Amino acid sequence: MPELRKEPVSGRWVIISTERASRPTDFKFTPHPLSGGFCPFCENNEEKTPPEIIAYREPGTKANTPGWRVRVVPNKYPALQIEGEQNKRGEGIYDMMNGIGAHEVIIENPRHILSLTALDSGCIKEVLLCYRDRLIDLKKDRRFAYGLLFKNVGASAGASLEHSHSQLIVTPIVPKQVENEMEGAEAFYKYRGRCLFCDIVKQEIATNSRIVVLTDNFVAFEPFASRFPFETWILPRFHSSHFENLQEPDIKELAGVLKNTLLKLEISLDSPPYNYVIHSTPFYLYESEYFHWHLEIIPRLINIAGFEWGSGFYINPMPPEKAANFLRDTW
Amino acid sequence: MPELRKEPVSGRWVIISTERASRPTDFKFTPHPLSGGFCPFCENNEEKTPPEIIAYREPGTKANTPGWRVRVVPNKYPALQIEGEQNKRGEGIYDMMNGIGAHEVIIENPRHILSLTALDSGCIKEVLLCYRDRLIDLKKDRRFAYGLLFKNVGASAGASLEHSHSQLIVTPIVPKQVENEMEGAEAFYKYRGRCLFCDIVKQEIATNSRIVVLTDNFVAFEPFASRFPFETWILPRFHSSHFENLQEPDIKELAGVLKNTLLKLEISLDSPPYNYVIHSTPFYLYESEYFHWHLEIIPRLINIAGFEWGSGFYINPMPPEKAANFLRDTW
Repeated sequence: MPELRKEPVSGRWVIISTERASRPTDFKFTPHPLSGGFCPFCENNEEKTPPEIIAYREPGTKANTPGWRVRVVPNKYPALQIEGEQNKRGEGIYDMMNGIGAHEVIIENPRHILSLTALDSGCIKEVLLCYRDRLIDLKKDRRFAYGLLFKNVGASAGASLEHSHSQLIVTPIVPKQVENEMEGAEAFYKYRGRCLFCDIVKQEIATNSRIVVLTDNFVAFEPFASRFPFETWILPRFHSSHFENLQEPDIKELAGVLKNTLLKLEISLDSPPYNYVIHSTPFYLYESEYFHWHLEIIPRLINIAGFEWGSGFYINPMPPEKAANFLRDTW
Repeated sequence: MPELRKEPVSGRWVIISTERASRPTDFKFTPHPLSGGFCPFCENNEEKTPPEIIAYREPGTKANTPGWRVRVVPNKYPALQIEGEQNKRGEGIYDMMNGIGAHEVIIENPRHILSLTALDSGCIKEVLLCYRDRLIDLKKDRRFAYGLLFKNVGASAGASLEHSHSQLIVTPIVPKQVENEMEGAEAFYKYRGRCLFCDIVKQEIATNSRIVVLTDNFVAFEPFASRFPFETWILPRFHSSHFENLQEPDIKELAGVLKNTLLKLEISLDSPPYNYVIHSTPFYLYESEYFHWHLEIIPRLINIAGFEWGSGFYINPMPPEKAANFLRDTW
């Protein structure tokens, strides 16, 4: 059973997972290339993954057989376990609990595609619908506080399989970074009475110097204080606290914006390794006036050194206005 | 002039540095190997760095000539500039200021050594004395709030030169991560009336399951909620808020503990890339009852993926008790 431990100084929680590695030699630094060999995510290899949780399938096809379009399975090496009690407890000044949660993999297509952008927007819409369905299902479990949807592309961004996929980790606590963002957004709301994100969106559209993609209901832009070159955020232009409350027409529009944005990054930067994450409002809030879900894309172009690690204070050599210019001019 | 910009949601500041790179192609992902060729940090190449700020030298030798033991120079590609006014200003809802600060390099030895551990403790003591001297000097400048001392070893940890060196970045704001730690430590102090770090040290020594090195006045241990395999912290056992207030006998003892700890990591993990950072109390506090300086060593053994980036919630596959065991048993 993995353990959740709280770092008492910063208040950050850590998953101490004992099942993944055990000897120091397991950690000798070798950037592992992604295998080009057998792929457990491809159609016809369904029995090589744990049994599916849900799949969008052709009528008449059976679970764990071909005929699916998007398929969700438990992670074979889960960071958290779904079964069991939290058992919150102390150890002197330290706080800990059992590593209860969910860790799922969303396989985005039965074909061995390397990028989400290889799909048409209709298929991307189904991937996003699947994100929504999993959140709606898992938030019913009162042990859980938060669902983090994310994607690793490329070995140096943490991907261990190249077949395009996303992941969902559901945790019994709200992650530190989301907590920080919520504190900032709440402080703004208390002081100015408006959603900070809605203000950001309005100012970005008015300034028009950092916009990458703009549609009726969504905007992709380079944030004013981007931590990384070509860091890109996607937000709904209307106030929306929970990703999982999106309606189908909006998800359809979002699929197009996501594809368009990722394509611009892939073309401009020669298919860089990247991560994206969705920051949505925690499960325990039914609605929030001040928090606004958003998707953060982080191309992994530069190494993070001691200064950044040690301070949370990033040095970005690419002004976001310049990055936005490059991306806008891509085709 | 670099800019300091505040990310309005999380409150994190970012340095937007325009002089380092300019085209998207500058960011194509290529882990750059450290050059084995000409080294500007070696003795006799003093004119290849900006003029020295201070150096510990043999009597009678001149600045910027051989004869030094430890030498401090401005970073050739500084993240922040020493000259100028802060000019704090707004841009709609955004906040920013000029990128004023200091960025210095501490060259630890005239010989082309690859690790601090190649030096005897007497020489390491001089490196640490030099850290102290630079902090004492720079904190006199009232524009500055914080000095972050750090070290990058290995290309994948962000080092661009292999000759053993440390860096100091002095900033006009307190970095987010230190702010978070100070909030946690202050909350503990308000509630329990004691320094949290002093409590941690006492509990670690009593438990004795995560200790790596223990001397009369210092302790090196694997933190209870380590974010990374073999993350190691070094703390004074006595309460001490500011690194720069250390006295010479303590610095001598610390030099031995640091050498011993780094050697254990190098031997156990085959000289891994790593970073270390010193978290000390901000300049504007003369003393602090609740914050306690510490040095955090982070071996760069695993890739950070989307989940960690996006949540600040780390998954560590190596229990700190096990890591401490391995390190203690090294020789």
